[in-house]
Amino acid sequence: MSLRPLGDKVVIKVKAEEVTTLGGIVLPGSAQEKPQQGKVIAVGTGEIIDGKKVPLDVKVDDEVIYAKYSGSEVKIGEEEYLIIRQADILAIVE
Amino acid sequence: MSLRPLGDKVVIKVKAEEVTTLGGIVLPGSAQEKPQQGKVIAVGTGEIIDGKKVPLDVKVDDEVIYAKYSGSEVKIGEEEYLIIRQADILAIVE
Amino acid sequence: MSLRPLGDKVVIKVKAEEVTTLGGIVLPGSAQEKPQQGKVIAVGTGEIIDGKKVPLDVKVDDEVIYAKYSGSEVKIGEEEYLIIRQADILAIVE
Amino acid sequence: MSLRPLGDKVVIKVKAEEVTTLGGIVLPGSAQEKPQQGKVIAVGTGEIIDGKKVPLDVKVDDEVIYAKYSGSEVKIGEEEYLIIRQADILAIVE
Amino acid sequence: MSLRPLGDKVVIKVKAEEVTTLGGIVLPGSAQEKPQQGKVIAVGTGEIIDGKKVPLDVKVDDEVIYAKYSGSEVKIGEEEYLIIRQADILAIVE
Amino acid sequence: MSLRPLGDKVVIKVKAEEVTTLGGIVLPGSAQEKPQQGKVIAVGTGEIIDGKKVPLDVKVDDEVIYAKYSGSEVKIGEEEYLIIRQADILAIVE
Amino acid sequence: MSLRPLGDKVVIKVKAEEVTTLGGIVLPGSAQEKPQQGKVIAVGTGEIIDGKKVPLDVKVDDEVIYAKYSGSEVKIGEEEYLIIRQADILAIVE
Repeated sequence: MSLRPLGDKVVIKVKAEEVTTLGGIVLPGSAQEKPQQGKVIAVGTGEIIDGKKVPLDVKVDDEVIYAKYSGSEVKIGEEEYLIIRQADILAIVE
Repeated sequence: MSLRPLGDKVVIKVKAEEVTTLGGIVLPGSAQEKPQQGKVIAVGTGEIIDGKKVPLDVKVDDEVIYAKYSGSEVKIGEEEYLIIRQADILAIVE
Repeated sequence: MSLRPLGDKVVIKVKAEEVTTLGGIVLPGSAQEKPQQGKVIAVGTGEIIDGKKVPLDVKVDDEVIYAKYSGSEVKIGEEEYLIIRQADILAIVE
Repeated sequence: MSLRPLGDKVVIKVKAEEVTTLGGIVLPGSAQEKPQQGKVIAVGTGEIIDGKKVPLDVKVDDEVIYAKYSGSEVKIGEEEYLIIRQADILAIVE
Repeated sequence: MSLRPLGDKVVIKVKAEEVTTLGGIVLPGSAQEKPQQGKVIAVGTGEIIDGKKVPLDVKVDDEVIYAKYSGSEVKIGEEEYLIIRQADILAIVE
Repeated sequence: MSLRPLGDKVVIKVKAEEVTTLGGIVLPGSAQEKPQQGKVIAVGTGEIIDGKKVPLDVKVDDEVIYAKYSGSEVKIGEEEYLIIRQADILAIVE
Repeated sequence: MSLRPLGDKVVIKVKAEEVTTLGGIVLPGSAQEKPQQGKVIAVGTGEIIDGKKVPLDVKVDDEVIYAKYSGSEVKIGEEEYLIIRQADILAIVE
């Protein structure tokens, strides 16, 4: 099962890395601050700008930083994704 | 009796699947979190973009994910539907 | 006396049907949930889209579903109507 | 002294009719619900739509229904008027 | 010292007339309800509409009615003025 | 060190004049009401209107009146400035 | 690892300079008021204005002043950055 986002929307798999504290305790992702980084899983067909469809700037597999609290969290099967408008993506990490 | 949505609106039959808990109890759809998935039942004639009518991207029978709390719930006879603007549909599930 | 709505506005006679409860009691319309269905009584001359007047999609006598809490309720003589912008009409019931 | 409204504005003399209750008591206009009906006294020179000035749809002496709580109440000498944008006028009563 | 308003702005000298009450007491302007009438002192060079500069509809010396609570009050020397966008002027009193 | 404002932004040195009260006491600027007047120190390259860059209407050294609470106060070295969009400038004092 | 901002976005390294108080105590940046100045680290490909992509006005290494509370703070490795829309940059310090 896969997701095909519409228009200017982008599907992101949020990065939830383990963190080792100074005392050596491993914290799972959920014990940390809300993440703002993830990997692009699928992109929409483009954004309508002044009546023309312009392809999106991000591509599948890009690591991206996005604005806090943006997008919609959805759960498909056991996996959680974030579906976000490209305008809420701030930068690509290279 | 059927519904013919106007413009950029889409009629969705919300998916309310039974869930079997770990203990084996079957929960009906209403005991769960608000769903965000459904099947497209009817689509409007298109969205006006810069003065031109552009056909919608979703089609009848598409399984779609939509943004939480979007659209209007309506009851026609015994059936409940969600009527939603296409812009609130996030992705098609394939 | 009749109403001639302006521009993209539509006059609707709200449907308030009697309901027979399981115990056989007939509830008048006002004892139920706020209705969202009605019949089109009059339509405006059209909507201005990018400088051109486009005729409305709904016609007199259409049965329509509209978004909750939209429009203005007005009383003309003994009759109550809802005057609503076409954009708040969700679908035509056929 | 008269009022010449600007652009898409319309001057309305609000209708405040007496009402005879079932018991025969005559209520003056102020004891009733806020009215939504009035007569057009003067109209502006037109609305700018996409850079062109389009004459208004309402004319002097039209009886109109307007949206509740719209417009500005002004008092000129002893008379009270409502100055309203044409977009807040819902329909003409004929 | 004089004021040259920018763009679609208009400088108004607010009218604060004395009022003689029924009992013969003269109330200065400040004891009354917030006024909505004044005289145009200076007008801006025009409003930009769809990329073209259109001269304003009001002229110096016009008596105008404006929307309550609109504009900015400024004090130049001993004089108080209201600087307001033309869109907040409702009508010219003739 | 100098400031080069972007686009439609304008740098203003706020006027904080001494005031002599009726009793002869000199009040420094900070004991008074928030000022709304200042001198233009630098102007941006212009405002984008319908896709074309239009030079600003205010020039360096203009004395201007601006809307209360508009703009951003910034401190560069020992000096305090207000950076404001030209649209928040109401008038030029001549 | 580097950041490539999208569209009209700009990556800024916020300036957090030490301050020596009158008594000679050195305050680190975090004990002061929220800064509004920083250095441009990376710029997006441009802003879409009326359908055309216009390159940004700021360049890498520019010292800029930005509006308080604008942008999104992000942490990449040990470094903290601010990602901001160019429209929230007020001026370049020269």
